[in-house]
Amino acid sequence: MLNIRTDLAVEVSENYKKINKKEIDGIILEEKELENIKITSIRVLNEEGSKKLGKPIGNYITLDISENTVYDSELMEEVALVGGQILRKLIGTDEEKTALVVGLGNWKVTPDSLGPKVMEKIMITRHLKNLMPDQFDEEINSVCAIAPGVLGITGIETFEIIKGIVQKIKPSVVICVDSLASRKVERINKTIQISDTGISPGAGVKNNRMKINEENLGVKVIAIGVPTVVDASTIVNDSMDLIIDELLNQTEKGSIFYKELIELDKEEKNRLIKELLEPYLGQLMVTPKEVDLVIDGFSKIISKSINIGIQPNLDVEEINKFMN
Amino acid sequence: MLNIRTDLAVEVSENYKKINKKEIDGIILEEKELENIKITSIRVLNEEGSKKLGKPIGNYITLDISENTVYDSELMEEVALVGGQILRKLIGTDEEKTALVVGLGNWKVTPDSLGPKVMEKIMITRHLKNLMPDQFDEEINSVCAIAPGVLGITGIETFEIIKGIVQKIKPSVVICVDSLASRKVERINKTIQISDTGISPGAGVKNNRMKINEENLGVKVIAIGVPTVVDASTIVNDSMDLIIDELLNQTEKGSIFYKELIELDKEEKNRLIKELLEPYLGQLMVTPKEVDLVIDGFSKIISKSINIGIQPNLDVEEINKFMN
Amino acid sequence: MLNIRTDLAVEVSENYKKINKKEIDGIILEEKELENIKITSIRVLNEEGSKKLGKPIGNYITLDISENTVYDSELMEEVALVGGQILRKLIGTDEEKTALVVGLGNWKVTPDSLGPKVMEKIMITRHLKNLMPDQFDEEINSVCAIAPGVLGITGIETFEIIKGIVQKIKPSVVICVDSLASRKVERINKTIQISDTGISPGAGVKNNRMKINEENLGVKVIAIGVPTVVDASTIVNDSMDLIIDELLNQTEKGSIFYKELIELDKEEKNRLIKELLEPYLGQLMVTPKEVDLVIDGFSKIISKSINIGIQPNLDVEEINKFMN
Amino acid sequence: MLNIRTDLAVEVSENYKKINKKEIDGIILEEKELENIKITSIRVLNEEGSKKLGKPIGNYITLDISENTVYDSELMEEVALVGGQILRKLIGTDEEKTALVVGLGNWKVTPDSLGPKVMEKIMITRHLKNLMPDQFDEEINSVCAIAPGVLGITGIETFEIIKGIVQKIKPSVVICVDSLASRKVERINKTIQISDTGISPGAGVKNNRMKINEENLGVKVIAIGVPTVVDASTIVNDSMDLIIDELLNQTEKGSIFYKELIELDKEEKNRLIKELLEPYLGQLMVTPKEVDLVIDGFSKIISKSINIGIQPNLDVEEINKFMN
Repeated sequence: MLNIRTDLAVEVSENYKKINKKEIDGIILEEKELENIKITSIRVLNEEGSKKLGKPIGNYITLDISENTVYDSELMEEVALVGGQILRKLIGTDEEKTALVVGLGNWKVTPDSLGPKVMEKIMITRHLKNLMPDQFDEEINSVCAIAPGVLGITGIETFEIIKGIVQKIKPSVVICVDSLASRKVERINKTIQISDTGISPGAGVKNNRMKINEENLGVKVIAIGVPTVVDASTIVNDSMDLIIDELLNQTEKGSIFYKELIELDKEEKNRLIKELLEPYLGQLMVTPKEVDLVIDGFSKIISKSINIGIQPNLDVEEINKFMN
Repeated sequence: MLNIRTDLAVEVSENYKKINKKEIDGIILEEKELENIKITSIRVLNEEGSKKLGKPIGNYITLDISENTVYDSELMEEVALVGGQILRKLIGTDEEKTALVVGLGNWKVTPDSLGPKVMEKIMITRHLKNLMPDQFDEEINSVCAIAPGVLGITGIETFEIIKGIVQKIKPSVVICVDSLASRKVERINKTIQISDTGISPGAGVKNNRMKINEENLGVKVIAIGVPTVVDASTIVNDSMDLIIDELLNQTEKGSIFYKELIELDKEEKNRLIKELLEPYLGQLMVTPKEVDLVIDGFSKIISKSINIGIQPNLDVEEINKFMN
Repeated sequence: MLNIRTDLAVEVSENYKKINKKEIDGIILEEKELENIKITSIRVLNEEGSKKLGKPIGNYITLDISENTVYDSELMEEVALVGGQILRKLIGTDEEKTALVVGLGNWKVTPDSLGPKVMEKIMITRHLKNLMPDQFDEEINSVCAIAPGVLGITGIETFEIIKGIVQKIKPSVVICVDSLASRKVERINKTIQISDTGISPGAGVKNNRMKINEENLGVKVIAIGVPTVVDASTIVNDSMDLIIDELLNQTEKGSIFYKELIELDKEEKNRLIKELLEPYLGQLMVTPKEVDLVIDGFSKIISKSINIGIQPNLDVEEINKFMN
Repeated sequence: MLNIRTDLAVEVSENYKKINKKEIDGIILEEKELENIKITSIRVLNEEGSKKLGKPIGNYITLDISENTVYDSELMEEVALVGGQILRKLIGTDEEKTALVVGLGNWKVTPDSLGPKVMEKIMITRHLKNLMPDQFDEEINSVCAIAPGVLGITGIETFEIIKGIVQKIKPSVVICVDSLASRKVERINKTIQISDTGISPGAGVKNNRMKINEENLGVKVIAIGVPTVVDASTIVNDSMDLIIDELLNQTEKGSIFYKELIELDKEEKNRLIKELLEPYLGQLMVTPKEVDLVIDGFSKIISKSINIGIQPNLDVEEINKFMN
């Protein structure tokens, strides 16, 4: 199922700054505003940064886009191009590559089907290059792809499947795509995170051995994630914060009610929500009403970014023609 | 889109009793407990009952079933049979019938696709009876079906489409199936409501003229609804109630905080939630994670109930054989 | 099921010319070659032309396109534009219109799902114009759409459904889209026929009363059809012709075998194929292996043509933005 | 794409007998007629049998069933049980097993989607046994499954993917399910072949190294295949045979035309069909019109057979309950 434990690096960093009034030491954060896209790059430099961010050393690039993006083909094209350029930088354009694209997630559950939907739109070249090596020069990279399914429907850890394939075909880079869960409703539909530090498939046993990353696979791993659901308890939590803030505004400062509300601190509230609501909310998820359309749109954007990113010697027109 | 304004009669009645410590006047409520199904029949007798229940005069039968039903074929069969018997009573078995089954909802949005999915499993006989009248005796009723789509994708009020068809084919009964929204998370997956008072398709203009009922169509209308989503603001509301109750338990009675909490009455809370959260939650819905499977299961149960209900002269084996 | 009796006007005309060495009297045939599209317009002027062509008086425009069209987004755009211009001419651009788009066919059978797939991509405006008449000027036409299903799954003649809706909403034009069967394998994937003489849904009772045309609906009817299957017996027939031709080439002219082959005339061959092969081929259809992709591509082309054709005051960019 | 080169062993054997008037040496053929199922077991004993049959040494069991099977749930249950018993014999019931079920084929192309559809209905237990070893005794076998896709959409030989996974999870048996092409139209919908000699995925490079069998995988391989398409050239060929036979019947024996027809021998005819028709028929396939429904029915039958076959200690009721 969905990868609900994965936070966006940018969310953690924002939270840290809000609480501590400063950036995390050991990370470099850069922001760039395009007309329709905000790019936030977080570079985790060392163990200190990694510990405080709760994320491995490496690069985390977040694209914040308008929620209308998936309804506007020009915006989609723009975002796909920006994503493609970022991927070219992360993958490298120096030498011939073999890329394995992995569409993580469950194709039977709409909000978890982003990965498999992206996988189906990738320009696959590996079998053609193998079959007719003379017809392709080294300018075209070799690309293959798989949608391994999820533990609940295969009974096999996703990592085991990927590892088996990587050992057979020895790619120079693995690109994973997955649906994420966000802690913030506002991220849904509006964020793409690209990182070079790997990913933990949602339902996997949470030991480090099973993480899909360079350390475990022996090959560079790039992960692309889009938040498509919020946990039901997250949205309750957020809503209560909004309401308590409003109550505090309305309540005379210094009154006993004010003090008690203030004292209703985060931890206590989280515990209450967890204990009381888990049995009641556990099987529910919160998604946009138009989730089918949103997933479809993001799958087009991200597959185009990957096709651009992995084929630096093709121009976008050629890729567009192929992808239509 | 989903019919989020439709409450289940049984919920309204329960709420009324909780607050007023008595049943609504002008309604008769009967409960019957089978091993795996609880049947609640509410009969609204007169204007007084109708006004207090907020529902037209007529019959409302609710089946409460285990949430495991859709994972257990025997339970499914049992529920389908009970539903079929109820439908036979509402439709009547006295004379030859022509039934039009209407699968309301949007087939592109999973939690709203119950109606169209049911429609596809109905035993269609009308064209065969028309084509080969000698081969069918009057014991087989004439059945046809349509999935008219929703206003957002057709641009036509669902009522207009139904009315046009009814005028052409003059059925003796119209059976509508729709996804509902519930006010209670606990209803999701676990309730089927059958009534003979009509239904308002979700996105329709909310004037009475557009309601799909006997008054407007000139023919008996039976509606079957299953709650498949909860509004995001509903779940926040319910969660806050749980938490306030827990806080009250933990707080010394008579203390000021206790009093303030008590005073944080329902209306105020609803207003806060509405004002603060509408922009934030408005485009979200809450569904079971397994919504695809749940909708599929309910579409099997309800289509079988309808096939049984409209063909009192066929035995269940014949219907099962057809439906597999 | 599929409309296998519908021949393309252009095929009949070609056959006639081949046999009779001249054009049919009473029709005007014009051809125009663009770089990637051949446009053949047949205008049936009078009863004589109608009888010989076996088609009602009116216009039949056929676009012959490359079979690669659906793999090339630029070609698709080009074809969509040409189709849009033809539709503008047939619909007329003089005054405000209300259009009803009808997606004929069965969404559960891939090669028959073109109509429903097109219907889902139409720019629906009617409900918005009704709801907010001040926000739309008369330059935007009112568009609504329906996918009525097929007789086998609804039990209702498609004509009855359309007629019922037309009487309610009184459109100024009805645009029907359907999958066709071709007599020629070469037409599959490569032809779009647009006519203003109506259409007979495939499985309908074949009486004239049920034809979806201006005479029966009281409103102009434009039909757009794409051949997506060939009858199994057609392909056997065509193949035998090829083989007999080849045998004739190899056989000494004047020999007895040659004469017998020549005498194995069309009628005899057709009778043999019909008698011998019907039971054996009756339930089979022949489609391109990539039928899912082909249908998807044509649904994009045709929905864009319709969106362009029915909204002469919008430019293509606006329509593209909407449709993406 | 579809595995069009795979012939059914039973077809080859029938052909041999027809031509040679005797059974192939080195094979044992047994037939058993149940009320609704004919079971043909071919055991290839040695190299001679293998060479003549063109199939490896091993067992080939064919179930011939009524074409109405998928419309009748009782027949489906019956066939599933028979299939389950055959699989129990081939898999063995002596000791604890780990089974990997492989759903071969392309889920995007309906007639090729049988394997992936079966895969989704398999009772997956491996992850549960790994997670909670104490809750499962050794009576429940460990089952996992994968749908690896096809070369055209992954760029990876299916064999490479399977081999990689087999090396990681070391199953005791691999069960592959695939759509087949038949040489005979009559086989479509009506045949299930089970063998223990492996399978060659359709689009794979046709070298022996890539065959999914015990020799290459190091573990027993059971293959289950259902013919779902006929090659377009096959159906032309068969049709011509029917017609030539009919012409011969009508033609005076001893006449020149008769002789020439007789001389139009198989090889020549095949060459003609191949040369003349390949470019014309190459991209076409022939399927039943109801292919969606047929594939769905067979996926239920075969998944139930596998669930029964791999869990000899569960009774059918338990499996039915799970599978519904």
